[in-house]
Amino acid sequence: MFMHNKNLMYTVRVSEPNPQLASLMLEQFGGPQGELAAAMRYFQQGLADEDPGRKDLLIDIATEELSHLEIIGSIVAMLTKGVKGKLAEASEETADLYATITQGSGSHTLSLLYGGGPALVNSSGQLWNAGYIDSIGDPTCDLRSNIAAESRAKIVYERLINITTDPGVKDALGFLMTREVAHQKSFEKALYSIENNFPPGKLPAMPEYADKYYNMSQGEGDSRGPWNQGEQWEYVTLNPADGPVNGGDGNPSVKLAAKELKAINAVAARTQSNPASDPTTGADLGAGPGAGKTTKSKTKA
Amino acid sequence: MFMHNKNLMYTVRVSEPNPQLASLMLEQFGGPQGELAAAMRYFQQGLADEDPGRKDLLIDIATEELSHLEIIGSIVAMLTKGVKGKLAEASEETADLYATITQGSGSHTLSLLYGGGPALVNSSGQLWNAGYIDSIGDPTCDLRSNIAAESRAKIVYERLINITTDPGVKDALGFLMTREVAHQKSFEKALYSIENNFPPGKLPAMPEYADKYYNMSQGEGDSRGPWNQGEQWEYVTLNPADGPVNGGDGNPSVKLAAKELKAINAVAARTQSNPASDPTTGADLGAGPGAGKTTKSKTKA
Amino acid sequence: MFMHNKNLMYTVRVSEPNPQLASLMLEQFGGPQGELAAAMRYFQQGLADEDPGRKDLLIDIATEELSHLEIIGSIVAMLTKGVKGKLAEASEETADLYATITQGSGSHTLSLLYGGGPALVNSSGQLWNAGYIDSIGDPTCDLRSNIAAESRAKIVYERLINITTDPGVKDALGFLMTREVAHQKSFEKALYSIENNFPPGKLPAMPEYADKYYNMSQGEGDSRGPWNQGEQWEYVTLNPADGPVNGGDGNPSVKLAAKELKAINAVAARTQSNPASDPTTGADLGAGPGAGKTTKSKTKA
Amino acid sequence: MFMHNKNLMYTVRVSEPNPQLASLMLEQFGGPQGELAAAMRYFQQGLADEDPGRKDLLIDIATEELSHLEIIGSIVAMLTKGVKGKLAEASEETADLYATITQGSGSHTLSLLYGGGPALVNSSGQLWNAGYIDSIGDPTCDLRSNIAAESRAKIVYERLINITTDPGVKDALGFLMTREVAHQKSFEKALYSIENNFPPGKLPAMPEYADKYYNMSQGEGDSRGPWNQGEQWEYVTLNPADGPVNGGDGNPSVKLAAKELKAINAVAARTQSNPASDPTTGADLGAGPGAGKTTKSKTKA
Amino acid sequence: MFMHNKNLMYTVRVSEPNPQLASLMLEQFGGPQGELAAAMRYFQQGLADEDPGRKDLLIDIATEELSHLEIIGSIVAMLTKGVKGKLAEASEETADLYATITQGSGSHTLSLLYGGGPALVNSSGQLWNAGYIDSIGDPTCDLRSNIAAESRAKIVYERLINITTDPGVKDALGFLMTREVAHQKSFEKALYSIENNFPPGKLPAMPEYADKYYNMSQGEGDSRGPWNQGEQWEYVTLNPADGPVNGGDGNPSVKLAAKELKAINAVAARTQSNPASDPTTGADLGAGPGAGKTTKSKTKA
Amino acid sequence: MFMHNKNLMYTVRVSEPNPQLASLMLEQFGGPQGELAAAMRYFQQGLADEDPGRKDLLIDIATEELSHLEIIGSIVAMLTKGVKGKLAEASEETADLYATITQGSGSHTLSLLYGGGPALVNSSGQLWNAGYIDSIGDPTCDLRSNIAAESRAKIVYERLINITTDPGVKDALGFLMTREVAHQKSFEKALYSIENNFPPGKLPAMPEYADKYYNMSQGEGDSRGPWNQGEQWEYVTLNPADGPVNGGDGNPSVKLAAKELKAINAVAARTQSNPASDPTTGADLGAGPGAGKTTKSKTKA
Repeated sequence: MFMHNKNLMYTVRVSEPNPQLASLMLEQFGGPQGELAAAMRYFQQGLADEDPGRKDLLIDIATEELSHLEIIGSIVAMLTKGVKGKLAEASEETADLYATITQGSGSHTLSLLYGGGPALVNSSGQLWNAGYIDSIGDPTCDLRSNIAAESRAKIVYERLINITTDPGVKDALGFLMTREVAHQKSFEKALYSIENNFPPGKLPAMPEYADKYYNMSQGEGDSRGPWNQGEQWEYVTLNPADGPVNGGDGNPSVKLAAKELKAINAVAARTQSNPASDPTTGADLGAGPGAGKTTKSKTKA
Repeated sequence: MFMHNKNLMYTVRVSEPNPQLASLMLEQFGGPQGELAAAMRYFQQGLADEDPGRKDLLIDIATEELSHLEIIGSIVAMLTKGVKGKLAEASEETADLYATITQGSGSHTLSLLYGGGPALVNSSGQLWNAGYIDSIGDPTCDLRSNIAAESRAKIVYERLINITTDPGVKDALGFLMTREVAHQKSFEKALYSIENNFPPGKLPAMPEYADKYYNMSQGEGDSRGPWNQGEQWEYVTLNPADGPVNGGDGNPSVKLAAKELKAINAVAARTQSNPASDPTTGADLGAGPGAGKTTKSKTKA
Repeated sequence: MFMHNKNLMYTVRVSEPNPQLASLMLEQFGGPQGELAAAMRYFQQGLADEDPGRKDLLIDIATEELSHLEIIGSIVAMLTKGVKGKLAEASEETADLYATITQGSGSHTLSLLYGGGPALVNSSGQLWNAGYIDSIGDPTCDLRSNIAAESRAKIVYERLINITTDPGVKDALGFLMTREVAHQKSFEKALYSIENNFPPGKLPAMPEYADKYYNMSQGEGDSRGPWNQGEQWEYVTLNPADGPVNGGDGNPSVKLAAKELKAINAVAARTQSNPASDPTTGADLGAGPGAGKTTKSKTKA
Repeated sequence: MFMHNKNLMYTVRVSEPNPQLASLMLEQFGGPQGELAAAMRYFQQGLADEDPGRKDLLIDIATEELSHLEIIGSIVAMLTKGVKGKLAEASEETADLYATITQGSGSHTLSLLYGGGPALVNSSGQLWNAGYIDSIGDPTCDLRSNIAAESRAKIVYERLINITTDPGVKDALGFLMTREVAHQKSFEKALYSIENNFPPGKLPAMPEYADKYYNMSQGEGDSRGPWNQGEQWEYVTLNPADGPVNGGDGNPSVKLAAKELKAINAVAARTQSNPASDPTTGADLGAGPGAGKTTKSKTKA
Repeated sequence: MFMHNKNLMYTVRVSEPNPQLASLMLEQFGGPQGELAAAMRYFQQGLADEDPGRKDLLIDIATEELSHLEIIGSIVAMLTKGVKGKLAEASEETADLYATITQGSGSHTLSLLYGGGPALVNSSGQLWNAGYIDSIGDPTCDLRSNIAAESRAKIVYERLINITTDPGVKDALGFLMTREVAHQKSFEKALYSIENNFPPGKLPAMPEYADKYYNMSQGEGDSRGPWNQGEQWEYVTLNPADGPVNGGDGNPSVKLAAKELKAINAVAARTQSNPASDPTTGADLGAGPGAGKTTKSKTKA
Repeated sequence: MFMHNKNLMYTVRVSEPNPQLASLMLEQFGGPQGELAAAMRYFQQGLADEDPGRKDLLIDIATEELSHLEIIGSIVAMLTKGVKGKLAEASEETADLYATITQGSGSHTLSLLYGGGPALVNSSGQLWNAGYIDSIGDPTCDLRSNIAAESRAKIVYERLINITTDPGVKDALGFLMTREVAHQKSFEKALYSIENNFPPGKLPAMPEYADKYYNMSQGEGDSRGPWNQGEQWEYVTLNPADGPVNGGDGNPSVKLAAKELKAINAVAARTQSNPASDPTTGADLGAGPGAGKTTKSKTKA
């Protein structure tokens, strides 16, 4: 069960209200790389994991991420404290309030719809959705997803730090960024303490396709590197007219029962196009008289 | 620019129509771990990457994933070919069509709404959305995301293989699964051919918080492992009443201008709760006469 | 900051695995009336509330809801433990696995995509999104929202109890349902301990429209009740051809600058319809020869 | 302003409850081709249209679609009336209720979450979203969108009719389907009563690219028809190695300021890949000892 | 069935175009607290309600909300009438048009994508989705949801009024705000005219948990008030190491069949972590040579 | 299978970086009328089409749209190249970076979250979702949808051209706009080369309702035009109190089994409202003492 300690994990000292900056901070409250996504990712995994050590790790970090969610949410709440009061009390001239609200960066919605409270949206107002969470219930995959997620969160914090002048906010962002680095290290250790973690899962790859690199984008710019050269790779350039890699006629096929075949043929006949026709079309009607070959004549001068 | 070769990359031979199985296959057409998400993830990254080798790699694999999308979509189209014709032509008894459509697993929507054509939804009918894509424009992060994504896709293919009896479908799924393994290897090589890829980004971690592991989930089950022990770690058990890790009073603070302070105080006063009150509430009204301490008496017998 | 106690708040004893039942339980894990929505609703509000007592209440209950999320998620994890193993290890005949996976109710996605781990989706696989949260940063509104939300959660638990035969699951659902009742009571007390909580906010209603009830749905079935009769109400039947309630010409208007007027008139002229025309249309072309008045002749026999 | 007449536009007589069929009907209540999408599409357009005749048409049909929404919603409410009572009152054995609820096709969510009331979801439980509406505020486009939307709605009704055995439901669906045909005719007339409706908008096409058909998918199956042959077309086969159609080097370019150039070069240098390296990767670590060229040896036997 | 009277319910007189203000108004057209959400919430409920009086009430107010949707949509259409013409006709210098479009607050999308027509998005461009509607088909819950929704809509209108200088818009917003107050009163009356409306539903609460208040957030700030003190409450402070409130071992459990147990054990064995290992990880590889305890040395100088 | 030619289909020469303009361009990368929606719409249709000529057409254009996606994505990448470097390297003063990031129009999210890489969002940051795709698997409908979609895309490009001053961007937008015109022509030809394409599908309309136009929006503004007059139409003005068009009592009905009837009656009884009551409500409690008829007295002065 969860408990809550009324102390923030990290004391936050914001210099002054700034609703525009607040709306940028929402990226890590309700954005895809933010703290709720992190907490829920690890919590879900922890609930279903069979390995006691990894389960403990996942719940430890999920709990810490919830504590980070509280920190970033508190930053938002401090940054909006000024506009919140003024909007609720209409304590400023209407025109001044309008100017404050519309100074850009999504802060208008944060004020008008959410009343300045931290909301589970990103810096553009996009609602958080669970599609941000990529857990699939296989530990070797989920740990890789966690490693990647921590690295992304580190960078978004770095970008926020780079544009924040408020020293108190900057300091707290530094703490949060640092913890993502520590978490990434933990997840890396957890991944590599599983033996034979590659390839993930149990089914072996088909050997005839596992070591091939298909060169499918061609032209000036074709490159070689360790990802497609060396002893692990066979480099295959597919030519534009090549057949399928497994031979065959390159078409999908299915065996239909007689009734199915009859039905699908009826559909096909009913909706067949006549390639030899030269129909007048809606566009022809719409282009007005004089529609000939060149679209030039059909476009307005 | 993209070109299209009318041969499938892998010839697919489906044994017989099965709309229910088709709806499961949608997981890899329009699901979060499916081929469109993969193709778009790498394509987006490739468009913006500054490194010529990595750019080539990303577009090669993006192109291959589009070719995979075609394969899995073709499988869906073959599996629904029977029901599609029968529904369009009403060539079966209504009750039989009803039974076919409702035989579970989401195939009703695939038939009714999409007419049996492969649609960008997952096996539950959830619309694909771009929140599935986690690219953030930093190569050391994006490659980690790609590694994780390939591992997840491998497992979802493995699960589909494990429940598919149609040998032609199973064979094609095996090819697709194998290619995810190969792609993961390529992305791993690309990540490690960037020197100093950890921590990602440029800003250093704050040294006082970078090596700590916070034990935040406590009780029987607390575990140690390489993710929180050894020379890289300082293990810190936070006690439930502990203050913030950076000291201070544990509360967020902000300096308000006088007008802001006045406004927020007015809001607070206007909406303050009276802790000493004992108000009658809507629930009290709704619970009917005789509402006393125990909810027992207020709940219906 | 949050802490985690490894004991569940309520010990759960599930009788036997049942992935289909698991997928129904997701309604309260990742559904709109589920525990994450509850926890986040109160947590957001608590972060921004200016009233110390109410803030404490909100965080207390947010924390309890997170503990409930853990309970319901653990139920899901127990119910899927059988299929999870069998799918990962392919330890059953393919046809049997297929039958298990497709036995309805959304459990196919829970298994294939999420590997049996509790996921933030509802019982239909709809991704959780923050649109489920209706907090707007005004305590008299937010408490009403919380009261309503608790009542809804109570009923969804009641429905789940009514269809669950597993006694251990039923017992845990009973606990969770009961706590929603207790929370509703608390939020009711908190609302009514704010004086003058109706109407919410500060701006007064316009007196000429505040006591009117407009009868806008008319015919047999028109009813009167305390919601539109009695001393608080003036009952107004709007007739189908009535003008606006504030007089005027019933049209919206705006004053345009000359350049704006000229531009909008140019658009209007360019896209005006000719009511006196009798154009041949795409439908006419498509209906084939013999298109006359009756659509009968144009529809297929 | 809207008024409501308590008579349905079309009297509906449902034979017997059937929650599974109800969930299929949701396709036209809360699905993408359903009545809310239709009503809102025309209503939005009507509010902003400058042409008085078209505005009248749009609001007439929007109003009728709302009346259709009421019909289809009433069908759903009738079909769920049995399960709704039994679930709310627990008036059946638990196991029987469980069986009823889980009989497939999404009806479990309709019962558990929505209590049998018609909900704005499709037959898979996907929440309705405004992305279904494609109005863009240009009448020649919007009318084309409306024509297409009516045709789609016609077909989804046809499919529902084809699988419905209840004669009362079938009859009502027939009415609704028919009206979509009538609406399509009206929108066609409205489109073609705008002169010069093609191309839409005001800007002319670039003549050098307006009449070309690019053959980009090549191989057996290449076809000709009126869409790419005849006097309106110039057929161009792009070869796989062809340069851009406008010449140039085929690369995107931008002129950067010196500071911008320096910064982007610094990023590039910091994250460059070393094509000549042969790094050990996470996959190599995870594949265990003996990792050589063939992935065969690294996959599990 | 619905009818439409061409008079607006309230005549709207907008002073002058202002696309930026228009985009703020979208909050009540296509936002979560807006008029479509309101109309659909009551309409859905009305279709399924068994009580004739309440059904009449719900449809009356649903119809009025549709009429409000028309008012707010008309305001948007008036406010964008200037930019719409100028953009369609390109009747201004490009640079001026660019400046107009990008003057903030989301108006760029309203212009570029929607052509100035009111769209079902909120002030940030977030698409309306049916997750905003919380009807569950139980009248005591749904009426509470309606009460809360009306209170929220009142406040969002109040905020819009507080930032709007245009007197005609302000006046219409005042009418709309007032009607929400009247609707809230009606829904309150309807709720309390149901006897025994608390707790909602039929199943009684478990008496041992219904009157307890769990103090789960602890530390300075712990408060008491009518929501957790007085005769209705037992105040329970959970200690961080406390066991479950129902005793037991605090772990979830399930009885597995032998085959299930074998399969899950095989998964666990295959993916177990080795707590005694000290693996080299991807992060170690990525941090470069010299990786020791301190992350300091691994972070870039 | 897809192949990629490293040349862009159209060489793009951007004058200078402009992240704000980049965010507007996203409308056609990840917006509803953008290139991904187009490519996927045709690709899905092509995979399932039974007509060889139309299949070829659909895949040709799908492939071209992917090539357009690459062009517009490359424009975005060029326009953000400046801010991307400066943000990643923090090579500018923090305050300057902050100013750049927040200069409006959604560019803050493009920079902070996506690092300047083109992302599948529209100009407001709304995530792309598959609800934008309206393919239903019937060629006469899908071609109409394609025609409409091409016309919409043409207009959005036109609007972007009208606000873009950068000549290189303007030129490339002109090419893309032109191709939409050409595609619309092709789809028109394909539609009209299907005989008897109206009404779509196979089921005939009900003759008694197919030629009626219902005048449902009434008052000053009622208009006649070819969409409701002429030999194809019967114009019917529905009066506000009219009964259903098919007679009957205007109510929906269903035959319930005895047990169902008993259950629904029990629900109705349990939740019935008492129209004769005069209950005190939560609003009455909240309005404070002195609540009488007029809401005036209950609203704050």
